Amino acid sequence: MTIFTLLDFIGTTAFAMSGALTAINKKLDPFGVFIIAFVTAVGGGTLRDIMIGRTPVSWMLDLRYVYLIVFGFALAVIFRKKLDRLRTSLSLFDTVGLSVFTLIGLERGMIWGLHPVICIALGTMTACFGGVIRDILCTEIPVIFRKEIYATVCIAGGIVFFVLKQINLEQDILYIITSAFMIAFRLLAVRYQWCLPTLQRN
Amino acid sequence: MTIFTLLDFIGTTAFAMSGALTAINKKLDPFGVFIIAFVTAVGGGTLRDIMIGRTPVSWMLDLRYVYLIVFGFALAVIFRKKLDRLRTSLSLFDTVGLSVFTLIGLERGMIWGLHPVICIALGTMTACFGGVIRDILCTEIPVIFRKEIYATVCIAGGIVFFVLKQINLEQDILYIITSAFMIAFRLLAVRYQWCLPTLQRN
Amino acid sequence: MTIFTLLDFIGTTAFAMSGALTAINKKLDPFGVFIIAFVTAVGGGTLRDIMIGRTPVSWMLDLRYVYLIVFGFALAVIFRKKLDRLRTSLSLFDTVGLSVFTLIGLERGMIWGLHPVICIALGTMTACFGGVIRDILCTEIPVIFRKEIYATVCIAGGIVFFVLKQINLEQDILYIITSAFMIAFRLLAVRYQWCLPTLQRN
Repeated sequence: MTIFTLLDFIGTTAFAMSGALTAINKKLDPFGVFIIAFVTAVGGGTLRDIMIGRTPVSWMLDLRYVYLIVFGFALAVIFRKKLDRLRTSLSLFDTVGLSVFTLIGLERGMIWGLHPVICIALGTMTACFGGVIRDILCTEIPVIFRKEIYATVCIAGGIVFFVLKQINLEQDILYIITSAFMIAFRLLAVRYQWCLPTLQRN
Repeated sequence: MTIFTLLDFIGTTAFAMSGALTAINKKLDPFGVFIIAFVTAVGGGTLRDIMIGRTPVSWMLDLRYVYLIVFGFALAVIFRKKLDRLRTSLSLFDTVGLSVFTLIGLERGMIWGLHPVICIALGTMTACFGGVIRDILCTEIPVIFRKEIYATVCIAGGIVFFVLKQINLEQDILYIITSAFMIAFRLLAVRYQWCLPTLQRN
Repeated sequence: MTIFTLLDFIGTTAFAMSGALTAINKKLDPFGVFIIAFVTAVGGGTLRDIMIGRTPVSWMLDLRYVYLIVFGFALAVIFRKKLDRLRTSLSLFDTVGLSVFTLIGLERGMIWGLHPVICIALGTMTACFGGVIRDILCTEIPVIFRKEIYATVCIAGGIVFFVLKQINLEQDILYIITSAFMIAFRLLAVRYQWCLPTLQRN
């Protein structure tokens, strides 16, 4: 197992926990909580796979994702009363997931021979659309459309990735630098509460 | 036409009626009512087909489903003022649909060579996600995430199916027993108002 | 570039503007506004392509759509305070998009060898479901399910198309007559506020 796979697993578990917690706060029943955990973890990659025609979608062919989601769901249920104190750790894992999922989407787009602009769209979709589907299933306007610097991190990461790729960096180094950039960007955005300017009509 | 096809048709019509009634209650216009009837009836199977890569999706290749949905839609519109009295019959048809749709999803997963856990997910998706899409289009949190024993019936039915499959039952017998189990489970759950325990945070 | 492509581009831009304006009214941040513009413009065609199995979906293979959406998004952002005065022009462009998108969906269904009823469904989906996804992402019940003559125009246009096709019209003439019919129908519907009868329960 490579370090990349390990980070992917951490991200999947963190996304499942984030989904489960949102659903618990919405007072869903355990089945609903599990489904929201599931779609938050795999929704972005599933949408990407469907749109590029890579089917059956990834998680159907690798049960380890299902087990990790069950694990993340169980952790969220067990520690649900203490998670306010663990919020910082969870946010860190989520940020790791964000950066790894973006890289997976970028890579998948390149394997499919798509244009860098589309690859960046696929990276962003992989990282962000699990959360979008989670919010829609809970009938909320997706949080990433409203206030946080989140998708912006993926887009910036994608641009950094393609710029660095021009100078023929080794693949491992390229991945590490791009991930580190996204993680730093996201942590700074959370720390200093950066947000995009709003577009007012009046 | 086999008994299985007949039950599939009954389920499709019942699901279309259930969708149409939800939409009428939401005061949608006739086109909206028809679309909600349509997605409730075929949404679960469509999502399953898209995710395993079986396209064009089933209903595009067999117009009988379209006609049945038109029929279910028309029944719901004509009898919309009397449907409170017919609720018990409708619920029975819906339960038949639930069990047949689960079996279709299980079978489709096995044809695709997927792991039993994924087959059970496909069965549950086929039976339940039409209703999930219906609720999302009506901007409600899906009812199966909130209160009813519904998806649980599909999951339990899937487990029964794979356990019985080990003992080499004939296929017809296997289908009948699994269906009967799901129908009985669901009717008992409705009758005694079974529900999953909630996960409270405080 | 044919006149058909030009109309497709006008429609894509108009749909992107319509999505952006809805999102600005919902006070989304610029990223959210851009995503809503994007899915409004390409959502219907993407859903169609996924359901018939034509992947990667169209816009991933032709960057001109991405540029047009960026253009429509920019126009909406720049003129957001003056768009009430431009509403009539925007509505006209939107109507052009409606008719062209319907034709594209009809044509795609015929290339895939599907039944006319399914082709009409694909035409309607191409023209209308970008707006449905836009409304769902903004947690509103899709406007086309509630009040306007919109999808009805696509369905009627599809019927006109297949009726005229029987008499062996030249393809260009067929497209022009069908488009003109849909545009006239839609403009009359808006002008005289036609709407479908409602289905009341009591």
